[in-house]
Formats: sequence, C-alpha cells, structure tokens
Amino acid sequence: MSYTFLSQHFEQRYHLQHLGAICGWDQSTMMPPGGSEARAEAMSTLAVLCHQQLQDPRLADWFAAAEQEPLAPQHTVSLAEMRRQWHDATLLPEELVRAMSLAGSRCEHAWRSLRPANDWAGYLPLFEEVLNLSRQAASARAEALGLSQYDSLLEQYEPGMRSERLDTLFGDIKSWLPGLITQVQDKQRDETLLQPKGPFAIEQQRALGLEVMALLGFDFDHGRLDVSVHPFCGGVSEDVRLTTRYNEQDVTQALMGIIHETGHARYEQGLPAHWRRLPVGQARSMGIHESQSLFFEMQLARHPAFIARLAPLLERHFGAQPAFSPDNMARLYTRVTPGLIRVDADEVTYPAHIMLRYEIERDLIEGKMEARDLPERWDQLMQSYLGLGTKGNYRDGCLQDIHWTDGSFGYFPSYTLGAIYAAQQAAAIQQLTPLEQLIENRLTSVFSWLQKNIWQQASLLDTDRLIEQACGQPLDATAFRQHLQTRYLG
Amino acid sequence: MSYTFLSQHFEQRYHLQHLGAICGWDQSTMMPPGGSEARAEAMSTLAVLCHQQLQDPRLADWFAAAEQEPLAPQHTVSLAEMRRQWHDATLLPEELVRAMSLAGSRCEHAWRSLRPANDWAGYLPLFEEVLNLSRQAASARAEALGLSQYDSLLEQYEPGMRSERLDTLFGDIKSWLPGLITQVQDKQRDETLLQPKGPFAIEQQRALGLEVMALLGFDFDHGRLDVSVHPFCGGVSEDVRLTTRYNEQDVTQALMGIIHETGHARYEQGLPAHWRRLPVGQARSMGIHESQSLFFEMQLARHPAFIARLAPLLERHFGAQPAFSPDNMARLYTRVTPGLIRVDADEVTYPAHIMLRYEIERDLIEGKMEARDLPERWDQLMQSYLGLGTKGNYRDGCLQDIHWTDGSFGYFPSYTLGAIYAAQQAAAIQQLTPLEQLIENRLTSVFSWLQKNIWQQASLLDTDRLIEQACGQPLDATAFRQHLQTRYLG
Repeated sequence: MSYTFLSQHFEQRYHLQHLGAICGWDQSTMMPPGGSEARAEAMSTLAVLCHQQLQDPRLADWFAAAEQEPLAPQHTVSLAEMRRQWHDATLLPEELVRAMSLAGSRCEHAWRSLRPANDWAGYLPLFEEVLNLSRQAASARAEALGLSQYDSLLEQYEPGMRSERLDTLFGDIKSWLPGLITQVQDKQRDETLLQPKGPFAIEQQRALGLEVMALLGFDFDHGRLDVSVHPFCGGVSEDVRLTTRYNEQDVTQALMGIIHETGHARYEQGLPAHWRRLPVGQARSMGIHESQSLFFEMQLARHPAFIARLAPLLERHFGAQPAFSPDNMARLYTRVTPGLIRVDADEVTYPAHIMLRYEIERDLIEGKMEARDLPERWDQLMQSYLGLGTKGNYRDGCLQDIHWTDGSFGYFPSYTLGAIYAAQQAAAIQQLTPLEQLIENRLTSVFSWLQKNIWQQASLLDTDRLIEQACGQPLDATAFRQHLQTRYLG
Repeated sequence: MSYTFLSQHFEQRYHLQHLGAICGWDQSTMMPPGGSEARAEAMSTLAVLCHQQLQDPRLADWFAAAEQEPLAPQHTVSLAEMRRQWHDATLLPEELVRAMSLAGSRCEHAWRSLRPANDWAGYLPLFEEVLNLSRQAASARAEALGLSQYDSLLEQYEPGMRSERLDTLFGDIKSWLPGLITQVQDKQRDETLLQPKGPFAIEQQRALGLEVMALLGFDFDHGRLDVSVHPFCGGVSEDVRLTTRYNEQDVTQALMGIIHETGHARYEQGLPAHWRRLPVGQARSMGIHESQSLFFEMQLARHPAFIARLAPLLERHFGAQPAFSPDNMARLYTRVTPGLIRVDADEVTYPAHIMLRYEIERDLIEGKMEARDLPERWDQLMQSYLGLGTKGNYRDGCLQDIHWTDGSFGYFPSYTLGAIYAAQQAAAIQQLTPLEQLIENRLTSVFSWLQKNIWQQASLLDTDRLIEQACGQPLDATAFRQHLQTRYLG
C-alpha cells in the first residue's frame, strides 16, 4: 500500500517534470525574448514545487512502511531508486533551490546574447551568482552525502562516480591521447580533403535530417525536430524534442548534430513503457545517455559503412558534387584538428575539451579558483592540451557552453564517460557480428541490441552492473583507445 | 500582512497557469500525436494542483484577516477579486476537477481526427463523458452559488451575467436579425464580387499576417504567430501565442483570423504590468475579451477605411489583381451569406450561430436534452435560423467547435456579448472623432482609447461599470444594431 502511494507520488512528479521539460524546450526554441522574465518566474515556481513535492512529510513514513512490504524483485529495485532520488533531492533548502533556478534562468537567457557579443564583463556578475549558489549547494550536498563538494554534484549526473576514479581514468587517457593526436595529424597531413560547396538551403538540410532520423528509427509519432542556439534533446520520453542549428555554408555539422541527438532520443523513446513514469524506468545516468548519442554519432555514423549510406542522401538533397564521395566524406568526418569549440570537436580531441572543463569546474566548486579567473585558466589549459589560445576570445572560449550558465557543474565528465561506454558497447556488438555488416544490411539489429541491453534496462541496474552485463566488463577505456587507434591509425 | 500572503499565493498560481498556458499552446501547435496521453496526464496533474492551491486551508484565515487590514482602494478591489476567484474555484471536489481535465483532454484530442472523419459515433461516448462531468460540475456550482445550473457555468466566463438577461438581449436581437439578414441579402444580390485568385503561398500569407499584426501594434517581443487547427489566442500576457490556419486557395480568411486574434492579444499585452500577476490585473471577462477581438476584426478591419489600407498590402505580397481593389475587398469582407460554419460566418449572421449554441448548451446542461440528440437539434435550429441543413454532416454541424470538447459550456454567449460591447466602444470613440479619420491617420489613437478605457482597467471594475465608464451606458444592443444597419444597409 505504501509502495503504491510512493508510486503515485513519483508519477505525479513525472507529470510536473513533463510541464517543465516542454516549457524548457519552448524557452530555447519558440519563446520571444520579452517572455523570459515571466518564464523564469514560472520555472522557478515549478522547481520549488517539485522540490516541495519530495519534502512531503508522508514520504519518510511511506518509505519505512514500503520496505516492510513483500515486493516483487523489480519493485524492490524501483523502491530503492525512488529512495535514492528522494534522498538526493531533499538535501537542499527550498530557498536555495528557488534562488538557483532563478539565477540559472537569468544567466542562461543573458548568455544567449552575451556570447555572440563576446561580453565577458556582462556575463561575469550573472555567472558569479550562479557559481556562488552552486557552491552553497555543493557544500550542503557534500555534508549530507559524505562526499567531497565536487563529487556531491557529480553524483547528480553519474550516481556512484567519484573524482578519484575520474582522475585515474583521465590520467590514463592523458598518457596516450596527446601522442595519438600527433600521430593522427601526421598521418592525415597529406590527405586531400574536398569541402562540400554550399549554400545548403536550411529547409533542405532539415529534410535530410528528418530522413536520417527516420533511417535511425526515430519515432516521429513521439517527437519532433526544431532549431535552437545550443542543440539538445529535451521534452519527455513520450514526446522527445530534438533541436539542432543550421549553417547555410556547412551541411556536415547539423547533420551529425541531428544524428547525435537522435541517439539520446532513441534511448528516451526506448525506455520501458511500463516503468517510465517511475525513477527505475528512467535513464540510468548522463554518462549512459551520452553513450547513446555517441554510439549513434561516433560508432555508427562516422563508420565508413554508414557514410557510404549517407553519401547518396546528400547527393539526392543537394545534387552531386565530388566532395560527396564516400571516401571524401569519411575523411571529412574523421578529420582530426585541434579547435576551440567543444561541440565542433572531432572524436579524438574531444576528451581534451572535457578534461579541461572537468579540472576547471572541480576547482571552481572546491573554491580553488574564482569565476573572474576563468578566462585565464581556460586559455592556459587550451594552450597546454591543444596548443590553442583564447585570450580575449570569450565567445569561443569560456563562454561557449550552456552548462555552467544554469549551474550544471559536474555534467561535463559524462561526455567522455559516454564515449568510453559507447566504445565498449560497439566492441560487444562487434564480437557477435562485424559492425560493418550490420550497418550495411541490418541496422535494426544494432538497435535491437541497444534496446535490449541499454534502453529497456533503464535504471533497473546500477551503471557498473549495466555495462558489465551488456559488455562483459565494467567501465574501462581500453575499447575506446582501440577504437580510436583502429579508426584513425589502422 | 495577510493581504501580502494572499498576493504571493495568487502570484504563484499565475506562474502555474503560465506553465499550463504554454503547454496548452504546444499541445495545439507543436505536439506530435503520440504525446497526447502523457500530456493529458500532465495537464490533469496541473489542474488538480491549481485546484488544490486554492483549497489551501490558510486562505480562509488570510481572507478574514486581510479584510480587517487598512488597504488602499485598489488593493481592496484586488482583494475582492482574489476572494471571488477563490470562492469560484473551490466549489468542486478535487476528483471531479481531475476527471474533467482528463476527459476534456481526451475528447479534444480525439476530436481533431474525428471531426475531419465526420465520425459522430466515435465522438459521442467521449462527449457524453464530458457532458456528464460538466452537469455534475454545474449542479455543484449551482447549489453553492444559488444560481441555475447553466448560470453557474456562465458565471465562470461572464461574472454577473444571467440567462434571464441573455434571453432578453437575444430576444431583442431575434426580433430584428432575421429581417435584417433578408434585407441585406436583397441589397447585396446584384453586387459584383471578384474572388481573389490563388494559390496564395502559405509563407507569403504568414508574412502578410505578421505585417498586419505590426500595423495593429502587436508586440513581437512578447508574442508570436503559429498554426493550429482551431485558431486561438493563448500563452500568457507577457508572451502571447496567436494561432491561425491557412488555406492556399483563400487569403482573406487567415488574414481576418489573425486580425481577430490580434485584438485578443493586444488586450492581454495591454493589461497593467503592475497588476497582471493578480486576478484584478487580468482580463475582465470573456465577453470583454471577445469585444477586443471583434473590435479589431469588425469595427476596425472591415471598415472601408481599413480595407483601403489592406488592399495595397495584398497587392505587394501577391501581385496586383482586380479582386484586390478596395471596393471589391470591402464587398467581400461584408458579404452576408448564411453558412454552416460559425468561425467563417459574417458579422450579420454570426449572432444566429451563437443563439443556436446558447439554446443547445443551456438545455444540455439543464438536462432538457441528451448528447445523442445533439445532431438532430442542431439541424433543426440551423434550418430555423439560417435555412440550412446539417443532416449527416457532423463535421460542419455539431462537431465544428472545440468548445464543448473540453467542457467549456457557457462560453458561447461571450461572442455576441463581445460584438455588442465592441459596437458600444466604437460608438463611444466615434463620438469623439470619426473612426474613418482615425483609421486613415491616427490608428494609434484608437489603441490609446482602448488602452486607457479597457486594457488598463483589467478587472478593476465589474463589467457593467467598465462598459458604462468607457461608453456612457451599460450593455445595450442598440449600438450593435445601428452599426449593422449603417454598414450593411446605409
């Protein structure tokens, strides 16, 4: 009975989050600028309400009683996930939650015009407010969870992950990545690259994107594609809202962006229908979420066999041109070039962008660094990891990402964790049937594997067990390294 | 202090309604079909929450205490409006509110495909459920408010309005309208009408619509224009969401629809910024709301002087053609033709559509008629009022409107009340300066009059006093009749 009450309570929470997800999507895709203040207030009220909902005094009694009830094994897991979310969500005082939501909405909204204006001075006070509140949150969470301040934030996105483990993992990657980047650049130096010649009409790019989404099994009855400054996969699992951004001069970027977000979307759409209103039926972690987008983008879409399927679609939408040959497209999509922008980074240099952000956000949260020092530290690390400077170029430096604008500290490691998990998943599939063969003839078998091993598992297992059960071993960068070596040096 | 608590409580309510308004807009404009079940659940949860929020036990004490506090006159009015909304919103049991929201969402969603399919049999059980719940609501409200069942629903949209008064008003209109329709048809019989030749590209129609919205002072920083099956003005006053529907063969309809919704939008955008989070700062009634859309559509946009300004815009967007001459466009836009579809009806026959719906919905709610008898009764009344049959044609008969699908019984009279109020407002302006002159040279003076006399008044006065203060006399159909006679027989 108490388990039933808890389930109903969490289902109500799911419905409230639905409203926030749709209004959040609207805020980034549809809302006129003058609506932002009222929206920020409404979203803040919702955040407080969701927070209050988990502070309902009846919950403690229900949890205590439910743990005495005879439950089927899956319901026991479901109960544990509810308890984990409940505990995690009740660590912060209501006032702080409200202030964070308001400051985050304001900073994110301002960032949309401050970034193009390269206006660091305009951004700094808004960001300082967000950072200040995030530090308060980290302290409160750290104390309650018995974790370090940064780990307490990481826990929100990657339950069970610790910076100590990340240090080891990233230490390993740092030991071979710079050498690999150099080797790949040497190898690619003499390659001939043809850039596709635009303009590529946005309507046509959108049509191509929709076609590729369909090829990748996106369910248009439960989702749609729109435009936003910073692409994301939002909405709810019954109604997934993908976004991308188009550049008339470049068809390759938006296309790959759409494929990336389609990976996120299929994970959401593939969650078990029976469970998705409850925590146990929702995405396992952000690292697993990123593993799906990166599986689609890196393991599938940049595979030569997939590019061979993309090439004729490009020709059909934009007419034939030499640059659309599969070989050339494959070279374009695997070109390694250290650059300033994370979301435009290639597969090989991407982890460097993440390690940079990880080190900075950890120090910001732990108080070892101040907001005002961000541009200088960013410039230093970019110099050290990729040999590029960002002095005075905030737009393409520390102002480039949306994450910190609303206080999502602790998220960035998920990208590289995702890349590693994706490589492990691809290696596991590869052990059954060569990926090339599946991409050429049986793409749906790949989706079935993911459906069974990842999507339908939702949060029924913890991350380590999920990956171990699917791939035969827990988190390990070996498959990722092998994948990069095979693709880029093989 | 209690007044402050109440204000905060109602501001929170405003924020929750914001989420519902945006998600409601999304549901009609953006949502893929598969999202409807989850959306219905989320909207239902929100409806219950808003309901619960007004059942907070602290409210009664706050109201009692606030009424003892020394308040400035406007705050006294604000307090009374909060009390009125609170009382009105607490009449129904939570379970009924939840069931109505769910049944309404389902019926409305199904209606979108059932209407084009002319599927009355598929619609009936869904509609019966909505009607059954609406009757329960009417009974509960009637008992608590000491009103008849139908009046208790009317009170939600037109506070203070009673069916007795409507019977008198509509009785008056019925006494002269049929004769007027005949006279106008006789007069127009020999007019030459040129239909503009399409197709009119939808993108171009949209561009024209946006231009006319700008001419009418719509604030695009606080609103946008989209497409839905049934046009509406939604969103929130800080971010007004207009919709229209386009027909490639007909440019006149969508254009006038946009102008109509722009009237609603300017009312919302013109509400006093200082008050709009509280009931006293929100729209006075649906009749007043419709008076603004009809002021824009009927008093302004169908005025020959306005059509003379529209004609060159049409030419610029679609090229010159004889049909775009101001005289011909004026004849088109004032053509009186009894037809089946309310939203396509001309200004003169429109009240007949409303009186038909008023009589039916009153009888449905009072239990004098059953849902299954709707098509027959509709057909009878259409025959009697406009000489047209709808036998077997549900699509263009009783399935044509969205209102009853979600249980909005009691709304329809607002349209004709709005037409009457709009005529009274135009007559009041006309007494100061001829409307023709204002339309030609000083359109903004018209908006200033509305801004001062209607928009900024929000709910600071009751409807009768609002109209009396603005127009010199309360609700009266004389100006409406004179307007029709002058425009159509003058």
